Amino acid sequence: MLNGERKIPRPLRWAIIGGGSLSQVGYKHRSGALRDNTAFQLVASAFDIDAVRGRQFGVNLGLAPARCYDNYQQLLEEEAKREDGVEVVTVATPNGTHYEITRAALTAGIHVICEKPLFFTTAEAREIKALAEQKGLIVGVTYGFSGHPLLMQMRAMIAKGDIGEVRMVELQYTHGFSANESADKFSEAQKWRVDPKIAGPSFVLGDIATHTFYISQLVLPDLPIKTLLCDRQSFIPSRAPLEDNAMVLMHYQGGAVGRMWASSINAGSMDSQSIRVIGSRASLEWSDYNPGELKYEVQGQPNQILHHGMPYLDESALADERLGALHTEGLAESWANIYLKFAIAISASQRGDRQTLETLIYPDINAGLEGVRWIENCVRSADNGATWVTYE
Amino acid sequence: MLNGERKIPRPLRWAIIGGGSLSQVGYKHRSGALRDNTAFQLVASAFDIDAVRGRQFGVNLGLAPARCYDNYQQLLEEEAKREDGVEVVTVATPNGTHYEITRAALTAGIHVICEKPLFFTTAEAREIKALAEQKGLIVGVTYGFSGHPLLMQMRAMIAKGDIGEVRMVELQYTHGFSANESADKFSEAQKWRVDPKIAGPSFVLGDIATHTFYISQLVLPDLPIKTLLCDRQSFIPSRAPLEDNAMVLMHYQGGAVGRMWASSINAGSMDSQSIRVIGSRASLEWSDYNPGELKYEVQGQPNQILHHGMPYLDESALADERLGALHTEGLAESWANIYLKFAIAISASQRGDRQTLETLIYPDINAGLEGVRWIENCVRSADNGATWVTYE
Amino acid sequence: MLNGERKIPRPLRWAIIGGGSLSQVGYKHRSGALRDNTAFQLVASAFDIDAVRGRQFGVNLGLAPARCYDNYQQLLEEEAKREDGVEVVTVATPNGTHYEITRAALTAGIHVICEKPLFFTTAEAREIKALAEQKGLIVGVTYGFSGHPLLMQMRAMIAKGDIGEVRMVELQYTHGFSANESADKFSEAQKWRVDPKIAGPSFVLGDIATHTFYISQLVLPDLPIKTLLCDRQSFIPSRAPLEDNAMVLMHYQGGAVGRMWASSINAGSMDSQSIRVIGSRASLEWSDYNPGELKYEVQGQPNQILHHGMPYLDESALADERLGALHTEGLAESWANIYLKFAIAISASQRGDRQTLETLIYPDINAGLEGVRWIENCVRSADNGATWVTYE
Amino acid sequence: MLNGERKIPRPLRWAIIGGGSLSQVGYKHRSGALRDNTAFQLVASAFDIDAVRGRQFGVNLGLAPARCYDNYQQLLEEEAKREDGVEVVTVATPNGTHYEITRAALTAGIHVICEKPLFFTTAEAREIKALAEQKGLIVGVTYGFSGHPLLMQMRAMIAKGDIGEVRMVELQYTHGFSANESADKFSEAQKWRVDPKIAGPSFVLGDIATHTFYISQLVLPDLPIKTLLCDRQSFIPSRAPLEDNAMVLMHYQGGAVGRMWASSINAGSMDSQSIRVIGSRASLEWSDYNPGELKYEVQGQPNQILHHGMPYLDESALADERLGALHTEGLAESWANIYLKFAIAISASQRGDRQTLETLIYPDINAGLEGVRWIENCVRSADNGATWVTYE
Repeated sequence: MLNGERKIPRPLRWAIIGGGSLSQVGYKHRSGALRDNTAFQLVASAFDIDAVRGRQFGVNLGLAPARCYDNYQQLLEEEAKREDGVEVVTVATPNGTHYEITRAALTAGIHVICEKPLFFTTAEAREIKALAEQKGLIVGVTYGFSGHPLLMQMRAMIAKGDIGEVRMVELQYTHGFSANESADKFSEAQKWRVDPKIAGPSFVLGDIATHTFYISQLVLPDLPIKTLLCDRQSFIPSRAPLEDNAMVLMHYQGGAVGRMWASSINAGSMDSQSIRVIGSRASLEWSDYNPGELKYEVQGQPNQILHHGMPYLDESALADERLGALHTEGLAESWANIYLKFAIAISASQRGDRQTLETLIYPDINAGLEGVRWIENCVRSADNGATWVTYE
Repeated sequence: MLNGERKIPRPLRWAIIGGGSLSQVGYKHRSGALRDNTAFQLVASAFDIDAVRGRQFGVNLGLAPARCYDNYQQLLEEEAKREDGVEVVTVATPNGTHYEITRAALTAGIHVICEKPLFFTTAEAREIKALAEQKGLIVGVTYGFSGHPLLMQMRAMIAKGDIGEVRMVELQYTHGFSANESADKFSEAQKWRVDPKIAGPSFVLGDIATHTFYISQLVLPDLPIKTLLCDRQSFIPSRAPLEDNAMVLMHYQGGAVGRMWASSINAGSMDSQSIRVIGSRASLEWSDYNPGELKYEVQGQPNQILHHGMPYLDESALADERLGALHTEGLAESWANIYLKFAIAISASQRGDRQTLETLIYPDINAGLEGVRWIENCVRSADNGATWVTYE
Repeated sequence: MLNGERKIPRPLRWAIIGGGSLSQVGYKHRSGALRDNTAFQLVASAFDIDAVRGRQFGVNLGLAPARCYDNYQQLLEEEAKREDGVEVVTVATPNGTHYEITRAALTAGIHVICEKPLFFTTAEAREIKALAEQKGLIVGVTYGFSGHPLLMQMRAMIAKGDIGEVRMVELQYTHGFSANESADKFSEAQKWRVDPKIAGPSFVLGDIATHTFYISQLVLPDLPIKTLLCDRQSFIPSRAPLEDNAMVLMHYQGGAVGRMWASSINAGSMDSQSIRVIGSRASLEWSDYNPGELKYEVQGQPNQILHHGMPYLDESALADERLGALHTEGLAESWANIYLKFAIAISASQRGDRQTLETLIYPDINAGLEGVRWIENCVRSADNGATWVTYE
Repeated sequence: MLNGERKIPRPLRWAIIGGGSLSQVGYKHRSGALRDNTAFQLVASAFDIDAVRGRQFGVNLGLAPARCYDNYQQLLEEEAKREDGVEVVTVATPNGTHYEITRAALTAGIHVICEKPLFFTTAEAREIKALAEQKGLIVGVTYGFSGHPLLMQMRAMIAKGDIGEVRMVELQYTHGFSANESADKFSEAQKWRVDPKIAGPSFVLGDIATHTFYISQLVLPDLPIKTLLCDRQSFIPSRAPLEDNAMVLMHYQGGAVGRMWASSINAGSMDSQSIRVIGSRASLEWSDYNPGELKYEVQGQPNQILHHGMPYLDESALADERLGALHTEGLAESWANIYLKFAIAISASQRGDRQTLETLIYPDINAGLEGVRWIENCVRSADNGATWVTYE
């Protein structure tokens, strides 16, 4: 169980690029990183494309004015001059800038934590992966809800054979907040998401479905995709070619099949993501709408509901628990868990602790690369008439 | 509201073929037809392939021994000789005999109520449709749960534009009762369902998904399919070529899309069928697991739950209500509603009441034909490598 | 599993008094009794205080006009003259007439099935009990939902010790349909319920809470009440002294405690009745809102949900199953189960089958008497300033 | 919406007494206070009765070793000598020490945030209230979940008359974690709770029910209790006279009634607290098990579910939102909201900002006093044979 005690020798000096006062996601990064003040310390920022607004925001958060920078270039340049310069930077900008900022930060010798989808292409992701390895630096990807303890439980139960042989993976991340066009026009935080130049080759596949895809990889680490078919729509025509709805079919190596439904036009729905893994003996199901429950349904037996924080859970799940059974945990705890693992990885990297680096489970550069790869395959299928493509 | 008062001048003389003591579905037919004793009167039977067992069962249900026949041929022959012979017969036998029994009954001038899937091919369905029209006889199809009042509510709300323009139709009928092979081997009622000679070209598509497909047609009467893709699996290899899991994608005329997931290997699941229709303004969702609730989710407003039997519902929904709000209705009420409509149609046919025949909404021969057609298209797609096919 | 096959040698000749075309409950009686036509046969009626309307209703249900009587006196008199006169009569009239009709029917040698609350006083109930015993006749009481198979499961599990020692019984039957006064004024079926001369000494305690109280006795047959406190309110003043809301506390023999909340002013609530029994090891919970599920919660283990119709249930629960797992059962099945047991009891009584009479579990005269007794104690406490009273 | 920006000129210098490494609640205080580092800064501690363990824990949380004190006396003494001494201290020790520590801190001129139940007696609470007023200091009470935005929504809707006149308040805080005796014996965090010398005059009434009682006062600020009856049990005999189960009935001024059920022996239950307020027109219901939903049930209309973070909510609810609709919030956000309000109150007190102090809604000394008062009345009733007592 986590209670804020330090897991690394000292907090890391951390900066954030993007995620300013108009951002929806910036607060999730700060909440996650600074949960206990024992993993990260926020020391610098380049919060906003509007430099004045960004500086003011930094000051309002308690940052030293001198370290509230106008842009990421300035941040990297000035911090490089300091003895106590930043060690790790979070990239919470629109997708189109992830690649260049990440490359610049790594080149400057700084660890990176980056929003999803990581980049536009797998070529970029592979290049950055090579760069990070060469530099000995960590790249973490903020698949936010993937830090929930019950996903570790799901992973452990599947690994132990509790559901038998995996037959089907049912994935969904849908909501209705883009059911009409107005959001695209008036919300700064929304507008760029449907502009291919800034968002990249997809809207909902990258914006939301990559979260759930990563969760499927987290709980099913040994289930590679063989072929895939993606059928995508732009119900708001101005969004084309970017999709606001996508239906994906997957064939995994070994015979299992899968589905993903990603949508931002699921009108009226507050449900967000869910995963159901069906085995030959039982199924496991989890949704971030009610994240403290894990359904375990053994064919022919009473259905079971496992609750977070309970002693009967796997030790890997209990290790990431924060509040304990009875006390609803949510998104913020998951982000805090991920950020803590980023800190552990970075600290291990700094101290040359190979063993930690090899065993720690967290969304790393490979997870980011796999997300980009999945989108790339989906888009290739969709653009080819929603036909089956071999997973490349 | 229905309270058992007669809706037709006198109960129809009714026989049942199949649906005997080992059948799972026979009791649903009898419960539905005989709910109030004002629509049907059970007067004859050929319950079982084992004639002795069938006769005994008929006697146990209170039938006159002389009218408990050995087989359907005898039933049709002997009843034809009587002044008070049967007017309508239910066919509740395995799929492979639906066509020949229906044809024989119609030829004998008897109305038919038949289990789904109606026949093996649309060619058969079209032939029977022509025969029924020529004879002026009704053919009803027992899509059991489609009689639920809240589906009439869903239909009315969509027609009134309450959800805006339809964008997506999400369908599911899954359970886990065939997750392993044993059911196929030991249960008489299950064994034939995976034998193509008796079950026809599909297992779960015809056995369960046609129910939900009909419900989608009931609530969306003006949404024809344009193209379709079906990916089916036989997770228990001995079931091949029949599928125990199928994932279907659909493109409707006008741009809407749809999905269907049919499965009997969804281990541990008791959920059966559900339908969610997503419009540009709101969504409607119903599941037969909790059939008394209809979810109405308008984007940007509090989610609503409509309950059966409440005065705010459409009159078409209230007309089919039996128990009233507060009192859980289930499958049996839905069957009773369908059977009542069969009786009304048959009586209208007998009395030459064209207006009733033209306005009554119930699963008729066209609904049966459309079910067979949908399966045929699904199988064609699946057998062609799960590729898109034009809906024929 | 029940499939309609006869459980008694022949259907009983049955009449109904009350429950006519304006009644909410009449249809539930007819649905229950006539579910399979192998337990009861409706042969006579006195449906309505408006004799013409009552006769017409009987005809519309298919009764012979000659046996549609003007009132219960006429019914008893005329049927007594027939060889094939009624053997059992259902009393579905307002409470105030239960006693006189029941007494008259028993005196005429006819078995009785009566609505709850049985009578106004335990003195009446004891007198009728003695009369029935003297005559060798059955008196059944229609606690409608108590026929649900999962209640037999609850009873069996508690008896087997699955929850340990019983500590608390939490009971609730509430709805909001009388939240305002209008229902009392305009609905015939509602008006008399708040008139003490017709309804008796209570409104919601007798009208709804006796259902749940009987269910508690059904699943906990060995838990007598020691003392009780009832606090009741008339939020619509014109209902006073009858209550539209009541809160009861109970102390059972042996140290367990209990609560009941009965209300018809729980605005907006569709939930009706629920029971939770808490033991030293686990709890069991059932609600008629979702009657196919039984929650079994063992402290320190994953919560379990048991579903009706599943092979893992106790044989006593499976014996009363009708539709099978997957297929939602509701109120109608429960009524059918109760009525079937009435028929079995009556037939056993006719044939002198003592063993059946001694082992059959159903709401008999004692159950009716206990309901009246509970109300009597509640009212005594309430009228004494909501103080504790010794259970008499 | 809250995003971490400072709401007060600078973070307050904060210390914590109790809540060390073995505590269940200490982490909730730290998470709440330090959520954004703009409200509080943890500068000193006396974490543990075991001074060595307490110091080590402080160091592990990043505190300066010199300010990790052995006990609260030392903390107050040493911090008083510093220019930058603590301004506010949290008391997270067992109940029996709340009074003396709070008095000592206030006497030392330090604001206090204290765990519930505040003290053993209202006399103590009144004395401390007077002391705080005399000193011009704030006393906050950590009713943890009361900071949830949807409770502000509930308060606003009731105030606006959305449910009509209040008729009944249904309260519950129950779980099963003390269903057997073992917890009392082996868990340090649990053992003292059933010892009257340390816990005070009650177990579950003070330990959990005061949370829900405060929530009822928060959403119903103008509903004073007139009379009350409490029936309490000690199912584990060694806990006597302290109760592990309590059932309370309440009569409010003006005719409304209420119930509370508090239990730690509700075996198998993970549900914790819920509140339902029933009005003449509609009901509102909230539970911390699924805290992002608020049920709004208008009699005769479809039931509504309101979700946190949605634009249709009252501005008072949206003001306290942190993560936004779609993103599950839980206990941690509620604690953060309360702690933020403590900081705002303390800062206002320091700056002489009367207006803020008069309008800010948060659990203050009065809320703490009312909790103690409610327990006192409950215990008086229970010890008087579970009889009605006038609320004093």
